[in-house]
Amino acid sequence: MAQDPDLSEYLIAPDPGAARLTRAVTGRDQSGEEVSLRVVEERPLTIFLNRQEIVTAMTIGDHPEYLALGFLRNQGMLRAGEEITGTDYDAELETVVVRTARETDYEAKLQRKVRTSGCAVGTVFGDMMEGLEQVRLPATEVRTSWLYALSAKINRTPSLYLEAGAIHGTVLCQGDRPLVYMEDVGRHNAVDKIAGWMLSEGVGASDKILYTTGRLTSEMVIKCALMGIPALVSRSGFTAWGVEIARQVGLTLVGRLKGRRFVCLSGEERLIRDADPASVAEEPRRAGRKGAA
Amino acid sequence: MAQDPDLSEYLIAPDPGAARLTRAVTGRDQSGEEVSLRVVEERPLTIFLNRQEIVTAMTIGDHPEYLALGFLRNQGMLRAGEEITGTDYDAELETVVVRTARETDYEAKLQRKVRTSGCAVGTVFGDMMEGLEQVRLPATEVRTSWLYALSAKINRTPSLYLEAGAIHGTVLCQGDRPLVYMEDVGRHNAVDKIAGWMLSEGVGASDKILYTTGRLTSEMVIKCALMGIPALVSRSGFTAWGVEIARQVGLTLVGRLKGRRFVCLSGEERLIRDADPASVAEEPRRAGRKGAA
Repeated sequence: MAQDPDLSEYLIAPDPGAARLTRAVTGRDQSGEEVSLRVVEERPLTIFLNRQEIVTAMTIGDHPEYLALGFLRNQGMLRAGEEITGTDYDAELETVVVRTARETDYEAKLQRKVRTSGCAVGTVFGDMMEGLEQVRLPATEVRTSWLYALSAKINRTPSLYLEAGAIHGTVLCQGDRPLVYMEDVGRHNAVDKIAGWMLSEGVGASDKILYTTGRLTSEMVIKCALMGIPALVSRSGFTAWGVEIARQVGLTLVGRLKGRRFVCLSGEERLIRDADPASVAEEPRRAGRKGAA
Repeated sequence: MAQDPDLSEYLIAPDPGAARLTRAVTGRDQSGEEVSLRVVEERPLTIFLNRQEIVTAMTIGDHPEYLALGFLRNQGMLRAGEEITGTDYDAELETVVVRTARETDYEAKLQRKVRTSGCAVGTVFGDMMEGLEQVRLPATEVRTSWLYALSAKINRTPSLYLEAGAIHGTVLCQGDRPLVYMEDVGRHNAVDKIAGWMLSEGVGASDKILYTTGRLTSEMVIKCALMGIPALVSRSGFTAWGVEIARQVGLTLVGRLKGRRFVCLSGEERLIRDADPASVAEEPRRAGRKGAA
């Protein structure tokens, strides 16, 4: 599994060479030598739903339409089957306006956002919990050979992380194939961009796996579950509430996936152990993501 | 610098053994073996200022009073010199009520929060930028020998990170001495707990260094600057806007501090290079924080 990844598998892969996403800055290293390094951009993007300003997200700035659509969908402001009549991005104003056939008014919902967390958790936590009681995810099987293949491919894919660091990645996968790899300064943006892509393309969730570089916190688990994706995989660790919710909704939850190692804390019965861990290479030190924390 | 850290240097150190902060969960590893691991808790804490509900933060749950005070101070809802008449934590209701002699009403401000980001950025970004134009930090010198000593001490201090992972750490330091080491599921919570401690104890900021395990994003830089701390140090990387703001307010910004390596992207003129990098040990692989991402 140490071969170079086949980038043609991706429908969307990172574009680490894009000039707009990173900036060269100059400083000095430990020896006092001048060093030039590329750092990721972080810009505001204000999302409107029809006439209403909803949120300003800090983002690297790629795929603004997907970010807007996915954010609104994940907040429940776009309904299932919503008729979207337009998605207009204005690069100069740094805005995206999403238009729907239905008249929308989320003033009340926006008020309630105020009370939610701005900490580990992204936004509107109170709202997100709402739809969760009804969620029972499909019992889709996950092969451990897929997990190893995905991990190896994703870690070797040229990315902004490898180019500039300080960024999170999330990848929508099907079987052992990574389909859409989004990166962003906020891991929730990366997930929202994937949700926006799925919405735009009408892509189903029940046979997908979501891979994230970030921790498996409650909000990440809730987001994945509400998107209908039955498996969530990370190289990072868990929080107790994330584990609890995953077990409640029937989400297969695999964390600490590095080289041959992983821990499955939910959905063990849906895991097909078809790969011998001893045959999987340990991760070389260089390949390890060292924390886009 | 490979000696065990002198924990007596700390005024507050992590308490990784505290039963309330982690939970044992059982799962299976790559070989199908049952494993039990400790994962960090994540619980809601609702912060009130007098009669007004301000925010619900997701937190590991230690030092709730410091978190509440620091959050409110960092949002500008507690003013400099504010007369605080009480800070009441109710463990059962998971609330902290901070009371002031002055009557407060932040309804308008809370409305504006709605429009801000819930992504990489914690909260109320629009508000935080406000005070920034006036900020010019004191030109406090930072010795590179301190940076190396702090990094070595902090990485070796028993912590929830070492116990359970998936958590961020922030340490308030003075010279080569770590004073207060806070951890939380959200790195902004960890910073807010430090701000709350400083407010409670009346501790000055101008001779301090803030160490964080997290990335040096715009919001982290803004928070540090508004707290009046003239140096911000991280083992993680930078974002472009974080660097830009640090240069604007005169913040010494050091990132990617691992073993003997670091990069200084702002405040080079205040860095005293009194340590020979060649004399500093490279970080052993085990000691590396592998991303509480």
